[in-house]
Amino acid sequence: MDHYEKFYSRVAKSIQASEIRELLAIIKQRQDVISLAGGVPDPRTFPTDYLAKITYDIIKNKGAYALQYSETKGILEVREMLSEFLYKARGIVVDAEDIIITTGSQQGLDLIARALIDPGDVVITENPSYLAALGAFKIRGAELVGIKIDKNGMRTDVLEDTVKKLVKEGKKIKFIYTIPVAQNPAGTTMPPERKKHLIEIANQYDILILEDDPYSYFVFDDTVDIRPVKTWDTEDRVIYMSTISKILAPGLRIGWIAAPKMLTRKLELVKQYMDLHTPTLNQYIVAEAIRSGFILEHANKISPIYKEKRDAMLRAIKDYFPENVWYTEPVGGFFVFVYVNKPGFDTKKLMKVALDKYKVAYVPGKSFHTDGSGANSMRLSFSFPPPEVIEEGIRRLAEMIKNE
Amino acid sequence: MDHYEKFYSRVAKSIQASEIRELLAIIKQRQDVISLAGGVPDPRTFPTDYLAKITYDIIKNKGAYALQYSETKGILEVREMLSEFLYKARGIVVDAEDIIITTGSQQGLDLIARALIDPGDVVITENPSYLAALGAFKIRGAELVGIKIDKNGMRTDVLEDTVKKLVKEGKKIKFIYTIPVAQNPAGTTMPPERKKHLIEIANQYDILILEDDPYSYFVFDDTVDIRPVKTWDTEDRVIYMSTISKILAPGLRIGWIAAPKMLTRKLELVKQYMDLHTPTLNQYIVAEAIRSGFILEHANKISPIYKEKRDAMLRAIKDYFPENVWYTEPVGGFFVFVYVNKPGFDTKKLMKVALDKYKVAYVPGKSFHTDGSGANSMRLSFSFPPPEVIEEGIRRLAEMIKNE
Repeated sequence: MDHYEKFYSRVAKSIQASEIRELLAIIKQRQDVISLAGGVPDPRTFPTDYLAKITYDIIKNKGAYALQYSETKGILEVREMLSEFLYKARGIVVDAEDIIITTGSQQGLDLIARALIDPGDVVITENPSYLAALGAFKIRGAELVGIKIDKNGMRTDVLEDTVKKLVKEGKKIKFIYTIPVAQNPAGTTMPPERKKHLIEIANQYDILILEDDPYSYFVFDDTVDIRPVKTWDTEDRVIYMSTISKILAPGLRIGWIAAPKMLTRKLELVKQYMDLHTPTLNQYIVAEAIRSGFILEHANKISPIYKEKRDAMLRAIKDYFPENVWYTEPVGGFFVFVYVNKPGFDTKKLMKVALDKYKVAYVPGKSFHTDGSGANSMRLSFSFPPPEVIEEGIRRLAEMIKNE
Repeated sequence: MDHYEKFYSRVAKSIQASEIRELLAIIKQRQDVISLAGGVPDPRTFPTDYLAKITYDIIKNKGAYALQYSETKGILEVREMLSEFLYKARGIVVDAEDIIITTGSQQGLDLIARALIDPGDVVITENPSYLAALGAFKIRGAELVGIKIDKNGMRTDVLEDTVKKLVKEGKKIKFIYTIPVAQNPAGTTMPPERKKHLIEIANQYDILILEDDPYSYFVFDDTVDIRPVKTWDTEDRVIYMSTISKILAPGLRIGWIAAPKMLTRKLELVKQYMDLHTPTLNQYIVAEAIRSGFILEHANKISPIYKEKRDAMLRAIKDYFPENVWYTEPVGGFFVFVYVNKPGFDTKKLMKVALDKYKVAYVPGKSFHTDGSGANSMRLSFSFPPPEVIEEGIRRLAEMIKNE
């Protein structure tokens, strides 16, 4: 019995230790298990020599600033660099004043959730969508409504019908959360028509859009249109967020939000109470990596590493998985999402069996869904293990799917 | 007009841009103004050579870990080092499992506020107390009750009466927030009898204590008892928090909470939604600074720098301030708190005059109070400017106090 229970807030009471989390923590100590679970970058992609050198120089030469308290919205250097970077790399036009630096994308999600969501407000997401985003919205009391996806990402025709229905019911829709490019967990990308349609719906029904873009630097097919939804934004409705976690190093915890100026000012006021500001040193490191042009070059250099791994996973799936499995064929990102069409097949219940008997781990897919569906689904990540380990992992998983 | 207003949550609506904040932002661009406002460390105390070297080595040799995602509660290395450090430096007995690393103390405050406070819950604090702590509790809807202080810190006799009264009224008191050593903003320290009395009250009335200890490494008088309240904790009621912001570098944003194990597990679950984890690299840096013994040695080395500045400020106050001013004589920390006994003297209203006419800045004291009092007070910080500038700042302020 936890005798602190009576001191907890309603938020704290609503967050329970998750079985999956506990199981995933165990995996780390199990050398015999192949993990296709966590979506962590391959550490071979970390530019350690480069980062060691620039960090040394920054502390040595600019320590009086880089080690000091700094502005809540982020140091000017990094916001200016990002303003240029977002234009050059993604065609997004934002002033340095429209950018706020966050302690990783997760803080961006939490910050926006705190600034925009009251209990009972509706947030629309893709179904399935990113687990930790759904969590951040849910602990603010959001009512999540999921829109189904196909191989071209969110079905905006379904979105339109759903919005119409919700508005008719008098619901308050605060924003539509989307990962339009190389979606987590499905790996899909919306074509330009859908991105434009999304904007039209937001304009017509007076809704904001929260666009999360962590994976667009790892899109393996040149014909895919990776332009952000924000580039079609006509009424300043799109809040765009991204991060260096995948293209430089997640351990630095640097993300950013580019939003309409008035909104950025409000986010800044809320963030102040959350951590005063994101670590100054880490911001200087990112500013330098952008300034020197290193970051884009590096992203392009490491992208083929992930392509090779995606190819290995898809090949192994084709070779080993039985007919009754439906899976996404991601154009980019870190993940393949899988549905097993077999009555009673429950990936959460099978988790222990997977670890103990088949020595393979995945993330059960139900929690990526907003509507309680997806018990028969799982997310597989190809980002961390080498190709031959991915293949063996898929082979083991195929055994489990056939036998259980 | 902010046309995003209708999208904001109640929390966001409740946080308004503060006039003071705007004014303080302006100061930075004003070379002619002497700022006694922000409590930022003197950058001459930052060990840049040392930090540049160890950071280089960490990235170069442990980059695969130091640049990667890591555990929500903090990397094991830093929690183990802190467990030893807290015992050696402060006599606190906590296991590495009882510690959670936060992105600066501010995140610690926000995390605890989110985990413990529901709207209407009572939080007891010293009056005056730390501005940003009061803010973090208030945005969670806490009802703040302030306990007056004297030169020995919180009046625990008043605390006892207040708790009795609140309990009789049926109020739910969640915790007592205290900065027992070198208090912010008053610079006072509670003697052992008061610390013990505080524990007794918490035990008797079943309340938690949140002990914030950022300044105890800068106590300038060896006869002062700096032992934390937590060392007298008999029923696991004290949540202890501290930071390296003052003794190493605030720009790294590393703080920690040492709490009873069950509570730490809950805090970990809440933090996960806030930023996944505190930057890994920054944690490795702090682990190394503690492991090598550098950090304590360094704190002892830089403490005299702040003593000299405190002495300069108190000397100047004695020399220049008129009779009608009451001020604290801090045994440590960064601040002197001042009350001006002059009818209608309002430090917030005078802020613009102070900047434009007298070329000096301070933080108006009202927001440090829980009860709307303190319009005639201000917080003066001696941490940043050199002694001769402090003296000149006090001289200018004295002019203002006499003339306005």
